Amino acid sequence: MTPSESDQAFAFVRSFLQASYRVRCDARSIESRARAIAVEQSVEMPLAAIEDAFVLSEIVGRVVAIEDIENGVFEVRIAFSTETIGEDAGQLINILFGNTSLHEDVVLHDVEFPRELVAAFGGPRHGLRELRRRVGAGARALSCAALKPQGLTPAKLADLACRFVAGGIDYIKDDHGLADQGYSRFAARVEAIVAAMRTASSPSNRRARYVPNLSGDLDRMRRQIAVAVDMGIDTFLMAPMITGLSNFHQLVKESPRLAFIAHPTMAGAARFAPSLLIGKLFRLLGADAVIFPNHGGRFGYSPETCRAIARAARAEWNGLRPTVPVPAGGMSRDRVPEMLEFYGADIMLLIGGALLAARERLVEETAAFVAEIERYRHG
Amino acid sequence: MTPSESDQAFAFVRSFLQASYRVRCDARSIESRARAIAVEQSVEMPLAAIEDAFVLSEIVGRVVAIEDIENGVFEVRIAFSTETIGEDAGQLINILFGNTSLHEDVVLHDVEFPRELVAAFGGPRHGLRELRRRVGAGARALSCAALKPQGLTPAKLADLACRFVAGGIDYIKDDHGLADQGYSRFAARVEAIVAAMRTASSPSNRRARYVPNLSGDLDRMRRQIAVAVDMGIDTFLMAPMITGLSNFHQLVKESPRLAFIAHPTMAGAARFAPSLLIGKLFRLLGADAVIFPNHGGRFGYSPETCRAIARAARAEWNGLRPTVPVPAGGMSRDRVPEMLEFYGADIMLLIGGALLAARERLVEETAAFVAEIERYRHG
Repeated sequence: MTPSESDQAFAFVRSFLQASYRVRCDARSIESRARAIAVEQSVEMPLAAIEDAFVLSEIVGRVVAIEDIENGVFEVRIAFSTETIGEDAGQLINILFGNTSLHEDVVLHDVEFPRELVAAFGGPRHGLRELRRRVGAGARALSCAALKPQGLTPAKLADLACRFVAGGIDYIKDDHGLADQGYSRFAARVEAIVAAMRTASSPSNRRARYVPNLSGDLDRMRRQIAVAVDMGIDTFLMAPMITGLSNFHQLVKESPRLAFIAHPTMAGAARFAPSLLIGKLFRLLGADAVIFPNHGGRFGYSPETCRAIARAARAEWNGLRPTVPVPAGGMSRDRVPEMLEFYGADIMLLIGGALLAARERLVEETAAFVAEIERYRHG
Repeated sequence: MTPSESDQAFAFVRSFLQASYRVRCDARSIESRARAIAVEQSVEMPLAAIEDAFVLSEIVGRVVAIEDIENGVFEVRIAFSTETIGEDAGQLINILFGNTSLHEDVVLHDVEFPRELVAAFGGPRHGLRELRRRVGAGARALSCAALKPQGLTPAKLADLACRFVAGGIDYIKDDHGLADQGYSRFAARVEAIVAAMRTASSPSNRRARYVPNLSGDLDRMRRQIAVAVDMGIDTFLMAPMITGLSNFHQLVKESPRLAFIAHPTMAGAARFAPSLLIGKLFRLLGADAVIFPNHGGRFGYSPETCRAIARAARAEWNGLRPTVPVPAGGMSRDRVPEMLEFYGADIMLLIGGALLAARERLVEETAAFVAEIERYRHG
């Protein structure tokens, strides 16, 4: 189980994932702590009690590196056999982090996936290029606005949607708090919004898309999809950490025509590295776009964290389509040029509350937001 | 939005949840921070931009109390309308913690639920009394052992199960790492274990139950349930934070004859107070038993945390059945008397690796574990 022993063992392992953990630990204990994580996340029992040769050589996690990062924080890299995953997204995070998430001194920092596993999960079915094509956006950044607050009737949400259409927004998404509440049932809401948007006038070069939020168990989400697809919807918002990663991935697999935008609610900043969870895992499972808190907004993400998320979402990765980064969370129009400088044009810019704060000037404020994006393209 | 204003507003709110957050914050900022959480978790937009009277009076979260706990940690209590939940378990945690889970300085500490919401979710369908009845346990503590490591063939797992039966264990559960991997498919595993247990000889007063682990999306879990129920299984292990709370609750609702044991894997990633998530929320959604890390084992839970989990699982709560606490995680036989003193007999004692470490003496070690529990009953 020491690094040098494990190198030999890899000759017998056909395919493995390599997980990196950041562990706060004293230097004398880090080797045994690293081995404990490798055991916890694979066989979860004393190695001395294991007789099976296959389990010992292929299933037990292997510590492949321990690196002193800074002031009592170590990076521990552990290899796990892909055979332990069974191609299920839930089992993937169960093996990667499961019980170890109960320890307060460990962050799951990154994961290297073998090519076959990347191919098996498949990544975005649409991604950046298709999300641009659907709204005729060419090579510019995409724009996004949010329908809220929850508590509004379908008619009032539909009225907001029409004003966003008039302002020239590309994607108009439900707030992730819009579920299937009594004051705005999913079906009634989608019907009202789609009907209103059909007759709404938009700038000539714009084709807005409404993005309803899916919620509930898998059956309920499927019923929501069926209702919305009947009305012409082809893009949905989902919160994978609430719906369950397996269900998210199942919907991606069974709905090849649909695009999915992943919302980070319940993603919990402290324990999963955001670039891994939001940029890499959500992309691996098929998110076509990923919303995340931009630096300098309502959440504490640093510019480095945001850059890492965007990099993970768009980097070349065994041929997977790029996922569209959607920095958000307290953004306003005056930040658009700076955000375009920071991320480039391969993004979707989402402004929520700051647009709605314009109230009776909502259309004009939206049009100004859209124009800011145009300016950067031609700038 | 101050506490005194909000008292008035409650006259108009028919039913609400009250969430308690522990927030690390300086004293001058805590009031605005508390209001920010109330807004984030309800309408997620500037209040000044909201025109709708219903939203302002009923949907916006209300800060009802702020208490200085210790050294820069405040308890903030916020009331949310139950109308925002729509009776969906996923939406419940979306409203309670969702985006706020992205902040590193906040823990969701506790929630008070209105009686109607407790009744709507329904809690355990079986709980302590039925889990005892199924194995003829009378008033004593229940015993539980785990089949592992993953990587073993169904035949080898079945052999282990028979030896646990011979030792007199009540519940024999899959390790939560046993999913649907190629080396041990769910159906093949359950078939082999059930067949072997049928012919295994057990102490005369024992009726062991096998508890297979469900994994994957909702469809896949339903197929697993169907296969296992056909073979006579009536108790299952599930990891609600991986499968998604809505799917867990849906399976509880549609399977009134089945009992479910909840596993805490991935529960740590979100900075929920363990007593709330494991003791209260899992119980609310129908867990008949909840596994959690006992103090002094492999995980860092304190005795106070463990006592709080057990209290939440078993306390009188609008008539809900008690959920069986299952302290585990590095437990061994020598700790049994102390654990029974600590928790009383209304528990299930789970020993995993320490039993398996007995290897060829597994039956004897298991029987000794079972005898320790008997001794306490008669002691």
